Amino acid sequence: MSSNDNTISFPELIKLKRDDGQLSPAEIRTFVQGVISGAIQDTQIGAMLMAIWQKNMTDEETLALTREMMNSGDKLEWPEEWLVVDKHSTGGVGDKISLPLTPALAACGCKVPMISGRGLAHTGGTLDKLESIPGFNVNQSVQQVKQILQDVGCCIVGQTESLVPADRVLYTIRDATSTVDSLPLITSSIISKKGAEGLSALVLDVKFGRAALYKDLDSARNLAQSLVKAGNRLGVKTGAVLSRMDAPIGQSVGNAVEVCEALECLKGRGPDDLTELVTILGGHLLSMCRHSCTLESGKKEIAQKLKNGEALQKFQAMLVAQGVSADVARSLCSDETDYFQHMRRAAHQTELKVQDDGAVLDIDGLALAEVLHKLGAGRTKSGEKIDHSVGAEILVKLGQRVQKGESWIRIHHNCPDLSSHQRSGLQKALVIGSHNKYKALPRVAEFIHPNNPNMF
Amino acid sequence: MSSNDNTISFPELIKLKRDDGQLSPAEIRTFVQGVISGAIQDTQIGAMLMAIWQKNMTDEETLALTREMMNSGDKLEWPEEWLVVDKHSTGGVGDKISLPLTPALAACGCKVPMISGRGLAHTGGTLDKLESIPGFNVNQSVQQVKQILQDVGCCIVGQTESLVPADRVLYTIRDATSTVDSLPLITSSIISKKGAEGLSALVLDVKFGRAALYKDLDSARNLAQSLVKAGNRLGVKTGAVLSRMDAPIGQSVGNAVEVCEALECLKGRGPDDLTELVTILGGHLLSMCRHSCTLESGKKEIAQKLKNGEALQKFQAMLVAQGVSADVARSLCSDETDYFQHMRRAAHQTELKVQDDGAVLDIDGLALAEVLHKLGAGRTKSGEKIDHSVGAEILVKLGQRVQKGESWIRIHHNCPDLSSHQRSGLQKALVIGSHNKYKALPRVAEFIHPNNPNMF
Repeated sequence: MSSNDNTISFPELIKLKRDDGQLSPAEIRTFVQGVISGAIQDTQIGAMLMAIWQKNMTDEETLALTREMMNSGDKLEWPEEWLVVDKHSTGGVGDKISLPLTPALAACGCKVPMISGRGLAHTGGTLDKLESIPGFNVNQSVQQVKQILQDVGCCIVGQTESLVPADRVLYTIRDATSTVDSLPLITSSIISKKGAEGLSALVLDVKFGRAALYKDLDSARNLAQSLVKAGNRLGVKTGAVLSRMDAPIGQSVGNAVEVCEALECLKGRGPDDLTELVTILGGHLLSMCRHSCTLESGKKEIAQKLKNGEALQKFQAMLVAQGVSADVARSLCSDETDYFQHMRRAAHQTELKVQDDGAVLDIDGLALAEVLHKLGAGRTKSGEKIDHSVGAEILVKLGQRVQKGESWIRIHHNCPDLSSHQRSGLQKALVIGSHNKYKALPRVAEFIHPNNPNMF
Repeated sequence: MSSNDNTISFPELIKLKRDDGQLSPAEIRTFVQGVISGAIQDTQIGAMLMAIWQKNMTDEETLALTREMMNSGDKLEWPEEWLVVDKHSTGGVGDKISLPLTPALAACGCKVPMISGRGLAHTGGTLDKLESIPGFNVNQSVQQVKQILQDVGCCIVGQTESLVPADRVLYTIRDATSTVDSLPLITSSIISKKGAEGLSALVLDVKFGRAALYKDLDSARNLAQSLVKAGNRLGVKTGAVLSRMDAPIGQSVGNAVEVCEALECLKGRGPDDLTELVTILGGHLLSMCRHSCTLESGKKEIAQKLKNGEALQKFQAMLVAQGVSADVARSLCSDETDYFQHMRRAAHQTELKVQDDGAVLDIDGLALAEVLHKLGAGRTKSGEKIDHSVGAEILVKLGQRVQKGESWIRIHHNCPDLSSHQRSGLQKALVIGSHNKYKALPRVAEFIHPNNPNMF
């Protein structure tokens, strides 16, 4: 029996979505507010998320869900003259892009209040990587973030309690109920947080491939289009890059080792693929938020800031502003330094050998990451400690000719020895074959434009 | 990441069903035991139920779920020589079948430990109806049930705490999450309870039509087949009758008024359709559990027990065994009695008039029940009080010729007056038209046999 007033009951709301109906903005507000207030039971949230997973949502529903989640908490506000930008990645193996990109954008005059995550991935999230650096504090109040943006121009911080509380509740439940990989749920989770950050422009790095959430380009493009539409409809100029995630980004995977590689990139000597992805993402952002800027001029500007040390300077200042001692920050950012003077080095380094002559046809990022996860570089449950010192340095590059017996990977580990299972898992990640079978694939496949997300 | 042992995690279990996979008996056990122990979170139960609703279950999965639920608590055991039988109805308007059928079966020598429910329906369940009788106590321990079966042969009691605890948890959640109307969930809920009762034979009254859970015969047949298969596989000889539920059963709808009608039936003078359904259901049960008995001889035996007063005697003895004073029981079961001497009569009786000359083509049971629900005869939430005195006596029969201005229904109510909305709701339930348009439809459409549930 329906009640006498006009409000829909929670079971009726679930039934509507269960039966493939479209929820109105008011009904979506009822759901999100019920989640926040506790009026809707846990069993009902689980059922609703599964119904959304099964039946999907229209663009209108996704937008309403994103907006209601964004409005579930505080929203950041900035001085009008600031050009506030951010990047979000759907996550990949060796993805340390945020570390060089954030200060490079600040060096270009943008303000970057990057709110990042830890993630439940094979290796740590951006925050975990930065916490390899002694003293680095990801917990900054809104007032502190404002001050750091004023003084330095960029920061990389954790989510605050007051921003998008609905997402914190729903994210945990999605993880427990196998409803993570749903287009409207991913879209609303990502874009609600970015909307609450008060951004002028946002670039999304949507991954596809073996080590990504979406294995194929088409599915990743669907997500990118959904994100771009919702972002722009909420008033944030939003574009998306579709980038390949089969082999790791750069040559390092882990936490501390990735910080080292990011610092190398900021010193103008990072691996080409890492530097390229940083300049492309930064270039798109600059072209989206500055009328006079094209993708090419934007890329050039980012590349210049990586080369001329200005991005490195911003990074150093950011470290200090977020709690790292001036001495450590200066040493890490100096031209010649032993990074492991400052960051903990794992007890053991083990190198594995190439087992055949030939060319490197493939390096399976997912296979590597799975072993590193077992060695302690990642976490399975929220709140689990991770071991920052665990990681891998890949000593060969895609397409490179190698000989049997040469070292191809250096594993940093704290357990006494790698098990035979772990060794064989790692060896399976390296594919050696005839050089004429090697085909270099560009990392970036497409860009989804803010003004026309359905064209690419 | 999967854990190192072989047990599947709850999110993986949900994902399997979400993706239309088949759960193994061991995985279903993991789920049911997780529900009972509290190891599986409420959000996960909600998501799993919705995944089952969306993707359905195979016969094998349904059987495993039913078996695990049955095994989640105590199981009743009886002396080997007892012929223990029961009936279950999916619920309908005016369904007081259990009241005459239970003692009629006992009069035939069967033992009937009927465990009944209250239901969240427009009017009360069987237990609510019986509680119209002062002193009647539906709460009987397993030991008391055994004693009553020994002494009288039948009882009608509420579910005990220790029987099928998994169903109590899941039923409440299904109600909150709009996952009630799922074939495997309905099947496992009904059959697990009947399996735990230790029955020799079970007849199911599966309703179809306007006032039933399933509107059409095909859907109801699907449910009946699912129930019959699961019951027989669990070792209970199980058959099902498919019966029409458009107009109410008998002439009374409510709680106390239905008890009166059931008593009339036990006195051999009940409405034809009620008596017919009781004899058909009872006949099928007797033919299923006695080798020498056919449907026809079974029906004849039940009809005889209703006519010769033996069923009435059993009912009287059951009332006394379940707490009704001997005087009240005797008076209710005597040939001439004013039932409302013993049961509370509503403060007001309002008769509504036929508005056209013609024949009664239809009486919409659902429309009647919705008004009676609002007047207090049913409940919306578990635990709500219901008003036993509210009800309706229908003064005309299907096919009967009527004249404008004659009374067709008498409403028993405690609110001072019926609202115009309620009056028009009731009037809409009566369809008057030309007599040549009337077509009598048999209440029972099909029987689903225990040995061949897919044939009918």
